[in-house]
Amino acid sequence: MTSPRYDVVAIGNAIVDVLSRESDAFIEERGLAKGSMRLIDTEEAKALYAEMQPGIEMSGGSAANTLAGMAALGRQCAFIGQVSDDQLGEVFRHDLTATGVSFTTPLRAGDPPTARCLILVTPDGQRTMNTFLGASQHLGRAALDAALIADSAILYLEGYLWNADASREAMAEAIALARNAGRKVAFTLSDSFVVHAHGDDFRGMMARGEIDILFANEAEITALSGKDDYDAAVAAVAAQVPLLVATRGEHGACAVRDGMTVHVPAEPIDHVVDTTGAGDLFAAGFLTGLAEGRDLKGCLTMGAVCARAIIAQIGPRAQVDLKALVAERLEA
Amino acid sequence: MTSPRYDVVAIGNAIVDVLSRESDAFIEERGLAKGSMRLIDTEEAKALYAEMQPGIEMSGGSAANTLAGMAALGRQCAFIGQVSDDQLGEVFRHDLTATGVSFTTPLRAGDPPTARCLILVTPDGQRTMNTFLGASQHLGRAALDAALIADSAILYLEGYLWNADASREAMAEAIALARNAGRKVAFTLSDSFVVHAHGDDFRGMMARGEIDILFANEAEITALSGKDDYDAAVAAVAAQVPLLVATRGEHGACAVRDGMTVHVPAEPIDHVVDTTGAGDLFAAGFLTGLAEGRDLKGCLTMGAVCARAIIAQIGPRAQVDLKALVAERLEA
Repeated sequence: MTSPRYDVVAIGNAIVDVLSRESDAFIEERGLAKGSMRLIDTEEAKALYAEMQPGIEMSGGSAANTLAGMAALGRQCAFIGQVSDDQLGEVFRHDLTATGVSFTTPLRAGDPPTARCLILVTPDGQRTMNTFLGASQHLGRAALDAALIADSAILYLEGYLWNADASREAMAEAIALARNAGRKVAFTLSDSFVVHAHGDDFRGMMARGEIDILFANEAEITALSGKDDYDAAVAAVAAQVPLLVATRGEHGACAVRDGMTVHVPAEPIDHVVDTTGAGDLFAAGFLTGLAEGRDLKGCLTMGAVCARAIIAQIGPRAQVDLKALVAERLEA
Repeated sequence: MTSPRYDVVAIGNAIVDVLSRESDAFIEERGLAKGSMRLIDTEEAKALYAEMQPGIEMSGGSAANTLAGMAALGRQCAFIGQVSDDQLGEVFRHDLTATGVSFTTPLRAGDPPTARCLILVTPDGQRTMNTFLGASQHLGRAALDAALIADSAILYLEGYLWNADASREAMAEAIALARNAGRKVAFTLSDSFVVHAHGDDFRGMMARGEIDILFANEAEITALSGKDDYDAAVAAVAAQVPLLVATRGEHGACAVRDGMTVHVPAEPIDHVVDTTGAGDLFAAGFLTGLAEGRDLKGCLTMGAVCARAIIAQIGPRAQVDLKALVAERLEA
């Protein structure tokens, strides 16, 4: 087996984020689940956008954010995702390739437009996401580049892909392509609502040994395990995957491999500006550490440094030099 | 004469900014005039964008930025500008109307797309702007809403409008509409390159008494007056307009009216993040002070507070509560 060209190839929804600052009342009046993600259709997107404060547009998408972070940290990455041939698609493509990520999935012509996520950021820094999937829901088997997947050490998938029929159905083939090429599969659960809707699929994938590395936060891992107790949930899920990475916000994160658990605290921060992308950038730091051959503590620390950097700014793509931040922290 | 509904109606280029962080070498290698604005065509825009770092998109446009600031400070404003019926046009319209600014200029169908400004922000916070005028260059006489202009205490124009034939030619009519309705005309010189190209027009407008309030920075006022000495330039131009507002970056700003000059220092700042919109927001603060009936020192202080707020962040639309900042400063 030749050495793969890419450290990670990721498949994810290709989304441009529209971030605005809103009050807690704005969230409550609309009955939104604060801190979560929900899908919205064209009409809802139009209505919500009309009520939102002025926005900032920044490329997003969970797995794409992770790759942008890894590329900033010096890794070789490739992305598979579907945008339309419109202005936001051009923005998404530019921003990802400008970080050095390879992104060659052909544009999709015509409607629906490129996916947008309307992100409401409340004064506490929490983000509530409203996703119009647009062209992303048409990411199907045809977009899977078998040679690319075979040429990447890790295939990284986001649970959000289970929200649309076409992308959900394509994932079994993506996993098969990676495993047949002898590559590892990493998976992030994405959101507790996704786990509630598709947990059976995810548990099946774990039971069949299709997941090598699983990323989960507290709400997701308790939903997946059906256990309310966090430690019990971690233990139950850790028994199902070779490597579990569990993040828990301000309480830090842990990794479990071969029955060994390593924990790191969250990096200190004075003021959380916007939590958008926190989990994505944690995964970026962790996977970069893995690619660099670091031990679990090193990987977790890199994840925590990247997560801290992203919650100190608005939007999920780092405006600071992640590589310098990580180097400074690891040398300290 | 009935009391006007709007404090200010502004006419300006309707632009979405694409901001990226670039090195000084990036500016130098391309022979760009750092800190200035130049026009680029479709091909140049494509080529430059392809070389830029990942971006942040935020609505911009000089006069539109000023109105967004004034609306945030509680004033009634309206905008006249031309966007296309595309995604960036939708972003521009949303962001301006979400601040409370009235913007009813009909969208323009088809090509060219909505104007974009590729803004290169260097480590010192200076911004170098590359503007693709797109639909904005088609802002002509047909867009002038005579009733709206008559219903606004001040008509505010940006010098950038002189960069395209259609918008330049429409401005004489816009000024006539305002003056015939007994309204005041405010004008910002926008950029020293604009003054070099169209200074004769501007001097003619002043000589004919068409400008009531003139905004200029150091490079612009020396270009307009032909005098290298700053104080001499201010004195010469002040003799031509009822009210001159001259900004000078870190050296503060002054206003000259009826032979009286009032000066304020710049508001202190530790770290300049991005100067994009500094002049626009100074004008927002100053014009708001005027509308509130403040004296020149109060107006200048409001301008300085708003300019300071905008250079402490990326992009020209305030992500902080300008009203609270101004209130805090004026009470202190």
